Amino acid sequence: MRIAFQGEPGAYSEAAALRFSPGAEVLPCRSFEDVFAAVSQGRVSRGILPMENSIGGSIHRNYDLLVENELPIVGEVELAVDHCLLARPGTDLGDVKVVYSHPQALAQCEEYLRRMQGVEVIAVYDTAGAAKMAAEGSRRDVAAVASRRAAELFDLAVLEEGIQDYQTNITRFVFIARGPSPAEEATKTSLVFALKSEPGALFKALSCFALRNINMSKLESRPIRGRRWEYMFYVDLDVGRQSVDCGRAITHLTEYAQWVRTLGSYPGWTAPDPSPVAD
Amino acid sequence: MRIAFQGEPGAYSEAAALRFSPGAEVLPCRSFEDVFAAVSQGRVSRGILPMENSIGGSIHRNYDLLVENELPIVGEVELAVDHCLLARPGTDLGDVKVVYSHPQALAQCEEYLRRMQGVEVIAVYDTAGAAKMAAEGSRRDVAAVASRRAAELFDLAVLEEGIQDYQTNITRFVFIARGPSPAEEATKTSLVFALKSEPGALFKALSCFALRNINMSKLESRPIRGRRWEYMFYVDLDVGRQSVDCGRAITHLTEYAQWVRTLGSYPGWTAPDPSPVAD
Repeated sequence: MRIAFQGEPGAYSEAAALRFSPGAEVLPCRSFEDVFAAVSQGRVSRGILPMENSIGGSIHRNYDLLVENELPIVGEVELAVDHCLLARPGTDLGDVKVVYSHPQALAQCEEYLRRMQGVEVIAVYDTAGAAKMAAEGSRRDVAAVASRRAAELFDLAVLEEGIQDYQTNITRFVFIARGPSPAEEATKTSLVFALKSEPGALFKALSCFALRNINMSKLESRPIRGRRWEYMFYVDLDVGRQSVDCGRAITHLTEYAQWVRTLGSYPGWTAPDPSPVAD
Repeated sequence: MRIAFQGEPGAYSEAAALRFSPGAEVLPCRSFEDVFAAVSQGRVSRGILPMENSIGGSIHRNYDLLVENELPIVGEVELAVDHCLLARPGTDLGDVKVVYSHPQALAQCEEYLRRMQGVEVIAVYDTAGAAKMAAEGSRRDVAAVASRRAAELFDLAVLEEGIQDYQTNITRFVFIARGPSPAEEATKTSLVFALKSEPGALFKALSCFALRNINMSKLESRPIRGRRWEYMFYVDLDVGRQSVDCGRAITHLTEYAQWVRTLGSYPGWTAPDPSPVAD
């Protein structure tokens, strides 16, 4: 299996891809749009996208890309985002004078980095670049904030682990492909639909699932920008498309919704251990 | 009115506070916890908190703080986050060699900053600090990413405006106070409640509102971490607590929910213009 991800080797999306499919070949891409392109052009069999985070919420931008593009979701995986402070072996925590990382990681470790007084924090748009700078420069006072996997890739030592401000920082990723995953394996179905904002509209829409005893593991409303009284909804159903009820529920939903898009029907992620952690 | 916000003068939370209440006195705080403390100790009459963003989604962390603390929401405001590149008057865009900003702003302007080749991007944990460094240093090749208001505070020129990767970047903030806003002014009510994950549970819960023709302007599920089959829901109702139906709906909801918390009942935000922009 060959999986495209946004970022450079050592990125969390890569770690999530390898958590799902150990030993897979991975293709770094510059942007999420490039991940979609790599999949639709057949250069990879899968693409991976972060969809929501336990601190920050749903990544609306990637929902938009899923709706704009025609590629189905074929799987999902969860990963605990565990930031580490990495430096060349032999460097002590007290020696560090400069820290490199991606701005998103720097934001998530704000409290920790503020406590490292007198340290200059430099943003680079690539976690691997940060780790590489710590590994290859001549200075021994340089560190990087990155994943444990980046430490392995660049032969760096982990000075400290779990330096993010909020310990439970879990991201859910989905996989996209050119065609759907086998129907018989699907246990989950993701939908996006739009409703006019009027009392009872959502209640009617949810009746399509409730009347058929279909459970929802996610439901989120999002205002449609520029249309003040219309809302989009993200729904994850705990049922695969091979179920007769799933198809009937979606057909029923089209009676109430302005539009419905099935993002995919796929095997839900089952964590190998009760509280998932990165490697 | 005196309003506490997280950040330094020139922060977007401050801009949002002043958009809601022009001429208010503002108190910068180091953390969101400090904002809650300033309100509960009576050092300010209001605190402001960002709750959701049109690109990034709900800020779960601040929902958690609202649930943990007993301070009610008394109002809300929306602000377009419009990042500007600021420098000392006379500096040209081509002269810039170093850019300072908060990691969050640097992440939101990634595409723009990547295109500024050969520029060093330095993270500082305070937008005002970034603007101050651009204003006060002896070098003329230093710029900051911050708000237009920061430019005014530090006498900087706006080299470019709207440099964020996604143009429509709107954040919704809420105000907290020691006591509720007057019931007769409330047009909106925010709730958090928990349900067991079983088919139809949410449908029953939403019947409390639908059967009384109460519209919802937000509904979002969030898994309760550590309890795999329980979900928390954020709901915004288009009705104030002075409505008999609002009280009845909440009482009805307690029959189905494991717990219900009213975060506040307050006047909903009406943008002075159809598409709100930061002055």
